[in-house]
Amino acid sequence: MYVPTIADVKVAAERIKGIAVRTPLVRNDWLDEAAGARVFVKAECLQRGGAFKMRGAANALAALSPEVRARGVLAFSSGNHAIAVATAAKHFGVAATIVMPADAPKIKLDTTRALGAEVVTYDRVRESREEIGAKLSGEKGASLIKPFDDPFVIAGQGTAGLEIAEEIAPDIVFVPASGGGLSTGVALALPNARIIAVEPAEHNDIERTLAAGVIQRNAPGIRSICDGLLTEQMGEITYAIARKRFERVVAVTDDAVRRAMKLAFFRLKLVLEPSGAASLAALLEGGVDVQGKTVAIIASGGNVDAETFIGALNV
Amino acid sequence: MYVPTIADVKVAAERIKGIAVRTPLVRNDWLDEAAGARVFVKAECLQRGGAFKMRGAANALAALSPEVRARGVLAFSSGNHAIAVATAAKHFGVAATIVMPADAPKIKLDTTRALGAEVVTYDRVRESREEIGAKLSGEKGASLIKPFDDPFVIAGQGTAGLEIAEEIAPDIVFVPASGGGLSTGVALALPNARIIAVEPAEHNDIERTLAAGVIQRNAPGIRSICDGLLTEQMGEITYAIARKRFERVVAVTDDAVRRAMKLAFFRLKLVLEPSGAASLAALLEGGVDVQGKTVAIIASGGNVDAETFIGALNV
Repeated sequence: MYVPTIADVKVAAERIKGIAVRTPLVRNDWLDEAAGARVFVKAECLQRGGAFKMRGAANALAALSPEVRARGVLAFSSGNHAIAVATAAKHFGVAATIVMPADAPKIKLDTTRALGAEVVTYDRVRESREEIGAKLSGEKGASLIKPFDDPFVIAGQGTAGLEIAEEIAPDIVFVPASGGGLSTGVALALPNARIIAVEPAEHNDIERTLAAGVIQRNAPGIRSICDGLLTEQMGEITYAIARKRFERVVAVTDDAVRRAMKLAFFRLKLVLEPSGAASLAALLEGGVDVQGKTVAIIASGGNVDAETFIGALNV
Repeated sequence: MYVPTIADVKVAAERIKGIAVRTPLVRNDWLDEAAGARVFVKAECLQRGGAFKMRGAANALAALSPEVRARGVLAFSSGNHAIAVATAAKHFGVAATIVMPADAPKIKLDTTRALGAEVVTYDRVRESREEIGAKLSGEKGASLIKPFDDPFVIAGQGTAGLEIAEEIAPDIVFVPASGGGLSTGVALALPNARIIAVEPAEHNDIERTLAAGVIQRNAPGIRSICDGLLTEQMGEITYAIARKRFERVVAVTDDAVRRAMKLAFFRLKLVLEPSGAASLAALLEGGVDVQGKTVAIIASGGNVDAETFIGALNV
């Protein structure tokens, strides 16, 4: 098992130029006053594809040798990772096969297809996506792009942290965590920052993992409005980084996330999906002392449907 | 009458550093394909105060001598200009008096007061805001900060264009126009770009002004969802620039603006107020040939209430 370092993140930053974009650090007077700190919002909702996932997918595809990449790539995802891999594959002009549950939201199936990817659907109850993936990979020789437990994916997500470091030196970083690709990548990129991981209340495997010293799983069926933060468990590589670097794990409730989405609308003028607003919710309601500090929060994405968004505005 | 030049815009850019912020140019694959062009969205909704107005107010206050500025500033406004002047005054530690109609939205009255400004309300029907302003100015020696027809305000708004020029060389720029401060300032900053001014359908004084060769007014009572673009007529200075630089004026309907707000939500992840989405509406539905061009659109602000925004999402 190779655990990436900040050197890998720096290489990733060079590789993804022209594929992923540099996102702005947004400031807001109201937010500074509310937090009692200098707050910088890393607006990954403005990333290509609407979420940070583009960074890791771009780095993973760019790192493949041209011969291997030409045989295509494969991913399992019903969300932002699917769109990211399809977009990166389109950039390189190679085939992407995305294995998605047949009952995934139609908009996500359509978006992935519109990017030119082949979408293979499966029945969540009767079929194994791993078996389908192994079969497809064997037939086509396509490379599997994992969503988080991969050194190149972690290093790619970490470029968000590297961009922060080029502009400010944050004391504290709030970052959403589930599989751990973004949160550990950012931790690598910002070795002097205190890392606060944010996860949905009750779906608190990371808090339990760090307490137990061994990877814990979430019980099946636990839901949260944060649909991007419902990974069953961390990966081995992400855990190896998290155990050393996460200072604390903050849990956020659905209502706190909705309030943060509403604040992002009124104050920041940014559209955040629930998972993307989790770090803002943790800053404002998580009980972490940030007084007088320089704080970065990663607003990880903005892919939200109108109904969910309107629900947050009506909180 | 002094008509500012690009030199004034460059001086303004130095003056407003640390007061207004540099806003990002946002790109989006879908938008490029829909327009058949390379489109860059200047996200002024991410400006301090949520709108470009901060730039002009910052430059106008910074240009006053310290002695004059210490006597305070005065503005008439029920909208973004009020918030911008109050914010700039707070930055310089001087008093701001804002004359607002008594029936202005409560949130705007509250926001302006929360910035430390003194709000003087008047009855739109029975009182003259000019008389009230003249009286207050005489009593206090406060400097009137006009909303658009002022060389320093125009040059300040133009800094948005200068920031664009530092990153790209646009062939065509779509910019909302009403009083003309932003649109003519941006025109000064981008001397080689074709300027497309955007105004609400029916509230088409600028189109008629350019056709007639003399400043035209809008009939009273014409409404539009673009509450920031309902100035009665252009100013003398802004007209002097507009008549030379505006290539064309595009009118946008309320429904086209709502569709653009919805697109900004789904695709760009930006919250745009109606006036802020007018340029996007003009790009997508205005019938201007942009094929293969490098296009900048100024998304001028994001200060919109939830009800109006939800109305746009439900289009």
